[in-house]
Amino acid sequence: MKKRVMVLTGGGDCPGLNAVIRAVVKRAAQEREWEVIGSIESFNGVLREPTEIKVLDEHTVEEIHIQGGTILGTTTKGGPFAWPIKNKDGTWGAADRSDEMLRKLQYLGVEAVISIGGDGSQKISQALYEKGCNIIGVPKTIDNDLSATDSTFGFRTAVQEATEAVDKLVTTAASHNRVMILEVMGRSAGWIALHTAIAGGAEVCLIPELPYDINKVLDAVYQRFDGEKGFAIVVIAEGAHAKGGKIVAKEATEIGDTNVKLGGVGFKLAQDLKDLGLEAGIRVTVLGHLQRGGVPLAFDRILASQFGVKAFEMVLEGKFGEMVSYKESKITSVSLKDATKEYNYVNLDDYLVKSARGMGISFGD
Amino acid sequence: MKKRVMVLTGGGDCPGLNAVIRAVVKRAAQEREWEVIGSIESFNGVLREPTEIKVLDEHTVEEIHIQGGTILGTTTKGGPFAWPIKNKDGTWGAADRSDEMLRKLQYLGVEAVISIGGDGSQKISQALYEKGCNIIGVPKTIDNDLSATDSTFGFRTAVQEATEAVDKLVTTAASHNRVMILEVMGRSAGWIALHTAIAGGAEVCLIPELPYDINKVLDAVYQRFDGEKGFAIVVIAEGAHAKGGKIVAKEATEIGDTNVKLGGVGFKLAQDLKDLGLEAGIRVTVLGHLQRGGVPLAFDRILASQFGVKAFEMVLEGKFGEMVSYKESKITSVSLKDATKEYNYVNLDDYLVKSARGMGISFGD
Amino acid sequence: MKKRVMVLTGGGDCPGLNAVIRAVVKRAAQEREWEVIGSIESFNGVLREPTEIKVLDEHTVEEIHIQGGTILGTTTKGGPFAWPIKNKDGTWGAADRSDEMLRKLQYLGVEAVISIGGDGSQKISQALYEKGCNIIGVPKTIDNDLSATDSTFGFRTAVQEATEAVDKLVTTAASHNRVMILEVMGRSAGWIALHTAIAGGAEVCLIPELPYDINKVLDAVYQRFDGEKGFAIVVIAEGAHAKGGKIVAKEATEIGDTNVKLGGVGFKLAQDLKDLGLEAGIRVTVLGHLQRGGVPLAFDRILASQFGVKAFEMVLEGKFGEMVSYKESKITSVSLKDATKEYNYVNLDDYLVKSARGMGISFGD
Amino acid sequence: MKKRVMVLTGGGDCPGLNAVIRAVVKRAAQEREWEVIGSIESFNGVLREPTEIKVLDEHTVEEIHIQGGTILGTTTKGGPFAWPIKNKDGTWGAADRSDEMLRKLQYLGVEAVISIGGDGSQKISQALYEKGCNIIGVPKTIDNDLSATDSTFGFRTAVQEATEAVDKLVTTAASHNRVMILEVMGRSAGWIALHTAIAGGAEVCLIPELPYDINKVLDAVYQRFDGEKGFAIVVIAEGAHAKGGKIVAKEATEIGDTNVKLGGVGFKLAQDLKDLGLEAGIRVTVLGHLQRGGVPLAFDRILASQFGVKAFEMVLEGKFGEMVSYKESKITSVSLKDATKEYNYVNLDDYLVKSARGMGISFGD
Repeated sequence: MKKRVMVLTGGGDCPGLNAVIRAVVKRAAQEREWEVIGSIESFNGVLREPTEIKVLDEHTVEEIHIQGGTILGTTTKGGPFAWPIKNKDGTWGAADRSDEMLRKLQYLGVEAVISIGGDGSQKISQALYEKGCNIIGVPKTIDNDLSATDSTFGFRTAVQEATEAVDKLVTTAASHNRVMILEVMGRSAGWIALHTAIAGGAEVCLIPELPYDINKVLDAVYQRFDGEKGFAIVVIAEGAHAKGGKIVAKEATEIGDTNVKLGGVGFKLAQDLKDLGLEAGIRVTVLGHLQRGGVPLAFDRILASQFGVKAFEMVLEGKFGEMVSYKESKITSVSLKDATKEYNYVNLDDYLVKSARGMGISFGD
Repeated sequence: MKKRVMVLTGGGDCPGLNAVIRAVVKRAAQEREWEVIGSIESFNGVLREPTEIKVLDEHTVEEIHIQGGTILGTTTKGGPFAWPIKNKDGTWGAADRSDEMLRKLQYLGVEAVISIGGDGSQKISQALYEKGCNIIGVPKTIDNDLSATDSTFGFRTAVQEATEAVDKLVTTAASHNRVMILEVMGRSAGWIALHTAIAGGAEVCLIPELPYDINKVLDAVYQRFDGEKGFAIVVIAEGAHAKGGKIVAKEATEIGDTNVKLGGVGFKLAQDLKDLGLEAGIRVTVLGHLQRGGVPLAFDRILASQFGVKAFEMVLEGKFGEMVSYKESKITSVSLKDATKEYNYVNLDDYLVKSARGMGISFGD
Repeated sequence: MKKRVMVLTGGGDCPGLNAVIRAVVKRAAQEREWEVIGSIESFNGVLREPTEIKVLDEHTVEEIHIQGGTILGTTTKGGPFAWPIKNKDGTWGAADRSDEMLRKLQYLGVEAVISIGGDGSQKISQALYEKGCNIIGVPKTIDNDLSATDSTFGFRTAVQEATEAVDKLVTTAASHNRVMILEVMGRSAGWIALHTAIAGGAEVCLIPELPYDINKVLDAVYQRFDGEKGFAIVVIAEGAHAKGGKIVAKEATEIGDTNVKLGGVGFKLAQDLKDLGLEAGIRVTVLGHLQRGGVPLAFDRILASQFGVKAFEMVLEGKFGEMVSYKESKITSVSLKDATKEYNYVNLDDYLVKSARGMGISFGD
Repeated sequence: MKKRVMVLTGGGDCPGLNAVIRAVVKRAAQEREWEVIGSIESFNGVLREPTEIKVLDEHTVEEIHIQGGTILGTTTKGGPFAWPIKNKDGTWGAADRSDEMLRKLQYLGVEAVISIGGDGSQKISQALYEKGCNIIGVPKTIDNDLSATDSTFGFRTAVQEATEAVDKLVTTAASHNRVMILEVMGRSAGWIALHTAIAGGAEVCLIPELPYDINKVLDAVYQRFDGEKGFAIVVIAEGAHAKGGKIVAKEATEIGDTNVKLGGVGFKLAQDLKDLGLEAGIRVTVLGHLQRGGVPLAFDRILASQFGVKAFEMVLEGKFGEMVSYKESKITSVSLKDATKEYNYVNLDDYLVKSARGMGISFGD
């Protein structure tokens, strides 16, 4: 019987996940004694009855690197440490099924696990590692919010998508002398908004890290107008908020979990600008999950492919408890423990922020 | 002195306007005795003091066919028959400045006017024609709502944009087993939504012409789910509404003019589905003016170019009071009077609607 | 046992084939007594031993409308009337296996065949119909060379691809004051080149229907140059040729079948212009099969979907011996016999050609 | 009078040049005592009579970051050290006009020069610096062949373009069971081919650094075929060549300078494979200058913008004789002298090459 490595994807999906899976499978195909299986919807596939496991061979992964999403499915619910169970009183609680999971992995002949996921997933990876699981992490975040790696796949595709949106808004904004508000992803970190504002040449960029003064936003918008002519593009992260105000949305495009009925901070900002007397027409676009979907950019596929090859080679080397990382232009690895310590906020001293200000982009601060 | 033809663009902008302008100029360049001028922001450029007029030669229009928007600017306000004036009591009224405009055109040496615009603009064209103006119309509508022409430029680009959005939503929807709602343009006519739903392979398509039953929408969404697995794409026109309900938005992405604080019918639909107990995650994207902007599709540029050449040739032939039209695969013309009579709603007997139903798309009716 | 309809795709592939297949399957799914099977590589799948047949249900066709190519595979070789057989002397001949094929279809329970293909394929369809096969044709041509239908899927996607190529060449051409030659598909008909030249705003368009005078091409190129400045874009169909000259390539990008070692007419044209003393730098792009591949445009998917629904409905109505057609903005059908009579060349009196000339595009004639 | 900084672009054009120019101008606009002028076609604009100089203000650079090419034009000919002059015998020689150029810069009030260009341009920058010119370099290379910077703008856009070409070729290759050859840029360095092969999932990647064995290429192509089924994608850099063979093309798509009549190495490879008996159909695409043109990717615009801001800030700091650089994820600078010492070939020990081999990509070596 062949040695088995299990691959799984957890958390929000991200362009490039399939390229990682494919690279693991392609690399493993060069080692006769190994085979790859995938667990459906992160660890949940292992825990379900009947177990949801998929054999992954070169045929299964053919051309999947071109597709967004993940052929294994993903979820932000459940997992080995917080399996939802119904309490006797009808409410929902969470059960620790991690021991059971380790037994199941053993039963399935899994010698190593490659867990592709974000901050939350890698905390689970570390906890499993501490319980003896041979686990290797692959970082995943569309928001660029992991400090343990200089770069991750998916983020560039999201920025590209948002930048193309700005490009399209520019011509219609200029034709009508309007203010265009583009709401992009970023609940805690404003990386997508920052990169999009620079790439698209926006006038205003509002991010969670820098609460804004609505009057300064209004000033910045007016600057681009010369009398009645001109136009302005405002890029706003879904987690942006006014000084002293509070965050409007946990996830702006999410319905049901929160009391966000406004449909995002973009509409709120438009209303606030109107209330302050802005006469120009304002139009709002909420990109939503367009930023997560679609064909991954070439560079996201390349980084993802290298991550996949590296992850399998770390399995061969027995480098468990580590996460693949891209640091100072090199593919390397860090300990899972260190990987999840720090959150990667936009650093206001970064040259990127300086460059934005240097080109006249206002943060409304 | 050369004979002058004046070009202008009115109403909402639309990909292909610049290709029309360029074609008029290129065609006119072959006639030595003619030159082209453009009025800024539809007829308003003529009426302003100082007059806002731009000479258009081959250099001015170089490569503009690739750009969205209009190099002449456009507006939905003002015009010769309803110029905004402040009344003595501070309120705003409208003045008829049409006679003055005709005098100004004469003073500028304008022998013919090519007016590119939608329903509203062509009604103005007809009124000016009746007052003796040598005017020719070129149809423009991103919503495909003019019955006098089988096809217009811009509409295809909008549908393409919306379809690419669906393509991107599919992979993320499938990875998470979610319902994705995409709100597209279409306040009175659902053409963009209908075409997008077919091209994108959506499960549900909601249009203004067919008020929906929210329970039937829920049924259609559930059909695509098999237990907890599956996903569904819902395309909704901004003017869609439930049976017996009323239209939520005049323009869903517009702020200030209306009491639309919800930010569009997409969010409202999401909330309604949640309230009915839909357990799957729902995410909303509001495309907004992305649909109007950006690089026109090849076929929109081709149609627009033919319209521009035709319009100038109609000037040479003295076919005033007519509008360029595309009928039964031919470039032809119709009288302006007839052109604005009928509104082009989605015809429920059309083979397009039958095809949609034939492929299992639900209209919630 | 259910009634079976067989679908197959023949000839060169074309964006939209999968959308036709999907629409047939989706439409058939609404009729309980029917099921759909597909033959691999046109009719060859039926004739092979073992037979290569694929059951097509809604799951099989999920999301295939987004993909280029055909999930059934296609071929330009073999077929029921010209199956390749090795003669005793080692040479290759062709066998008529049509009777055998009809028996096999009966054995497979096939009550109707939907044959998606071009001119060659529909001639086979007609011949089979005459032998008693219940066959319905769906037109397919990337070159727009079928006169029996005003429009087919795939052509628009090819033109879009070529037009985007022109858009990209323009900025680099302008920066370096160069002449850019773009070689596109079109061995006998210049439709792709003609549409691309208009949409892209090229200076010169060379098509098979209009043999060119190389000196006139040179003149047209020079016109765009003002001293050393300026640039020019030349779009050339692979079947274009100089007056009195002969066609350089059967298929410019094809190797092995012909003695085309030059790599296409684009390089030849460049050399000829150089030989005539053109001093500006010249660069050549050979688009090749890029034009056939990739994601179909929204409108090609929509037309293809309607064709698929229509084809299955014609099966229900028993309208055999007919081909689906799009005429004067309506989905209809024509007899297969008439469908293959005339070849659709670029008509020099067409308003499209007039528009091109009207905008100053030279055909080198 | 304001202090003047002069910007110019030299060598082959590259997506992102305009974003650098725009960023310099936007940053300079924040310093009251400075203004920016541009020299047309690299240094040639200064040397011509009359001088070709353009004032660059915020209006001039509006939205140019979205366009490929360079608004200043560029050239690979002339320059201060090798100005073409006609000798008495009618042949052409080169004159040193560097002293004259320095005088002209002084006369124009130019206090600093920002020279955006590749290896050749930066060698001129260094020579001018040694003669006392206050010059700052900004690296530019579409081929990624400068070792002094980890990353440059334009390269990513070229790889993206080539990768999208592979994506399109895949569906048509699979439908017809063909071998598709894609010829990309890279005369001396195979970076574009290498990145494209990984991102696109090609079977074979041929680069100048690794002369290939045609029999091994054939083997690799056959591996992807299973009987008559299957397909293969080959990415070949224009400078790739067989072992012991010599480079076919200086620039594969260039006509006139060389005796390259074959139209590129792609066609030659196809012929060689045919001659060896490959039975599958082969099709060739020559991307050519598509790779240089078009809209720059978001990340190329962002890097270019940071380079532009940095270059102007180096002017303020008086850091002359230096070139902007991106090293270990930071914007920094290196001396021009060091910048042009080493050529950046594909390093065969790089993890990128290992990853490619790890996923089964053959280099034919």
